[in-house]
Amino acid sequence: MHHAADILYTLFAIFVAAQIGAEIAQRLKLPGVVGEIVAGCAIGPSALGLVTPEGIVAGTPLDVLAEIGVVLLLFAVGLETRLDELKKVGRSALLVGVLGVIVPFVLGALWAHGSGFEWTRSLFVAAAFVATSAGITARVLQELGALSRLEARVILGAAVIDDILAMLLLGVVTSLQGGEGVNVAGLAFVLVQAIGFVVVIGWVGTRVMRARGHWLEHPINPLSPLTIVLAICLGLAWLSTGFGLAAIIGAFLAGMIASEVPQREELEHQMQPLLALLTPFFFVVTGAKIDLSVFASAGALWMLAAATLVAIASKLIGGWLGALPLGRRGALIVGVGMVPRGEVGVVIASLGLAAGVFTQQIYAVIVAMSLLTSIVTPPVLSLLLRRSPPVQAPD
Amino acid sequence: MHHAADILYTLFAIFVAAQIGAEIAQRLKLPGVVGEIVAGCAIGPSALGLVTPEGIVAGTPLDVLAEIGVVLLLFAVGLETRLDELKKVGRSALLVGVLGVIVPFVLGALWAHGSGFEWTRSLFVAAAFVATSAGITARVLQELGALSRLEARVILGAAVIDDILAMLLLGVVTSLQGGEGVNVAGLAFVLVQAIGFVVVIGWVGTRVMRARGHWLEHPINPLSPLTIVLAICLGLAWLSTGFGLAAIIGAFLAGMIASEVPQREELEHQMQPLLALLTPFFFVVTGAKIDLSVFASAGALWMLAAATLVAIASKLIGGWLGALPLGRRGALIVGVGMVPRGEVGVVIASLGLAAGVFTQQIYAVIVAMSLLTSIVTPPVLSLLLRRSPPVQAPD
Repeated sequence: MHHAADILYTLFAIFVAAQIGAEIAQRLKLPGVVGEIVAGCAIGPSALGLVTPEGIVAGTPLDVLAEIGVVLLLFAVGLETRLDELKKVGRSALLVGVLGVIVPFVLGALWAHGSGFEWTRSLFVAAAFVATSAGITARVLQELGALSRLEARVILGAAVIDDILAMLLLGVVTSLQGGEGVNVAGLAFVLVQAIGFVVVIGWVGTRVMRARGHWLEHPINPLSPLTIVLAICLGLAWLSTGFGLAAIIGAFLAGMIASEVPQREELEHQMQPLLALLTPFFFVVTGAKIDLSVFASAGALWMLAAATLVAIASKLIGGWLGALPLGRRGALIVGVGMVPRGEVGVVIASLGLAAGVFTQQIYAVIVAMSLLTSIVTPPVLSLLLRRSPPVQAPD
Repeated sequence: MHHAADILYTLFAIFVAAQIGAEIAQRLKLPGVVGEIVAGCAIGPSALGLVTPEGIVAGTPLDVLAEIGVVLLLFAVGLETRLDELKKVGRSALLVGVLGVIVPFVLGALWAHGSGFEWTRSLFVAAAFVATSAGITARVLQELGALSRLEARVILGAAVIDDILAMLLLGVVTSLQGGEGVNVAGLAFVLVQAIGFVVVIGWVGTRVMRARGHWLEHPINPLSPLTIVLAICLGLAWLSTGFGLAAIIGAFLAGMIASEVPQREELEHQMQPLLALLTPFFFVVTGAKIDLSVFASAGALWMLAAATLVAIASKLIGGWLGALPLGRRGALIVGVGMVPRGEVGVVIASLGLAAGVFTQQIYAVIVAMSLLTSIVTPPVLSLLLRRSPPVQAPD
């Protein structure tokens, strides 16, 4: 009984903190998500301590709720994205995805080597600079009702490509670190698998849904289209982890498939309460992971500042270059939208720490850098989107 | 990453199993909840083993999701129940609650003593026969759209009173078992606290909401009434555990308070997707807790049959007697509605096992009895409600 009381208290505290944070942020004309992340930082181990570090490691109830929250968020984003519209921006998305991986990887490796790491370690550090986390940007785009903009589609398409490349890169640096040669055939197989997964699910899934969408009407359950697409969402989120991709990629694909059904608008409507309850857990837990105490020394602070600068500049340049065909303003929006690293950088840093490649300090720097990019992006992106004319994607 | 994959797979499996179970049950003209519980039994440790016993103990992610599910369910039920309507059935609810505790306690103690337990142990066993779990009945009533019926209101009111009395009784038998005398002053204090909590929250809460409901419009968040009442729901669920009551009692009170706001219908609508996603976890986890292997021996099976019979008959008699002013048919519906014991009996059995009062066998019997009452009730209740004229409660 006492355990139930503790967890209910934590859920209550997190939910209320998120609401207060989002409300304050929005009154300051900032995206609500910034307030939720800062609220997480405030109730986390660094400040109020309502959430403990042990309470948010992988596999805890809060971690699982956060995961469900971000999976549902990307599902809802997918629901507002149709495959046909995504295909129109395919070339731009591919360029943004590829350049947005290469530039951060090269600049990250140079910075790490310049900071005194040997080359193989530097490549591992650089890998943590690569992967964009679509969650933060998706939430900002959604809050501003900007998901139908051309730039939004390029960002979402690029995020899928980005995730595939980041996974490959992680495979490369892990085998380099292990002293093995790079197994090109093995990596090619992984690449083909991942691309195959995305293409088959995206292409076949949408086609099946268009042709057989009326099957969703068959069950007795009055909430049937919703329950079936939620099952597809959970299933594809799980499947995509089996192909080495992030769960949110599968959830996004599931949403895109579900956007083909006639009940699409009803589904979008029904997703709102689910997002309202569950996404705050993702953003608060993200904020709670920031450990401010590591940065008591000036040396660590400088290192963090440098890493964050390299992370932001490299992704901005890569994304901007890739998106230049959209015009300068559009390219800037895409570049900024690709900046957040979120949990993927954190995962790579944890692997590095576990493998003994990273020191505690560089680990803390990478984690804080990943989260800082997530805090810095929303206000800038929000400002850019409000100020630039809403160029709608061609329908 | 692998942990995330495992939990996503489990969530997917549970959700799909629940949908299939509910669909089959409804096609067989049974309430969907029966299908969800049976699905849990099927994917649980006794059969397919997709859910392990360690995966559903208190504090695991699945347990927390199940708890959130049943808390939201009782909140939604509260949303369809107004204090004024509940007050009209106050006398009947009180009678049903009190007799529905006394009869099972007395018959349970007699049965346990007759089965060879000494008196103090028999009283502990009897305590596990007492507490009605409102979740199952509430779900059946909601599925059939019967929450506005007179009998439904009596059942819900009685469930609150029942929970207060069960908590007191547990205090009494625990101190008897510990060899201490019963501390009457202490118990009276506990009783006053619990009643005070329910009355203050119910009475003051509804009054504040009626007078100040327009405050819910103030936040910028477009989903604001929903997010605020969800926060109240989590807060009261947690608070009620602090007063020794079940979390679902607080959630029910929160829903009743929220039913006073002008946006009540919109809130009911918005709760549907939340219930669709989260309540299946409660019912599947309930089913997964049934360990069929304990009942391989004829002796254990007989004991279970006897315990279940005593549990059903005693609650039926108590509830029926209390509800006789509603007429015979109404009294029968109320009696049947009070039968499910659900997780409260399981909690008491766990306490008994931990304190060394219960053997493994009587523990397994009590757990299985609690769950059997939950499986048996929905079809009977559903049949009774469909066959008897829908006597609406006076408005």
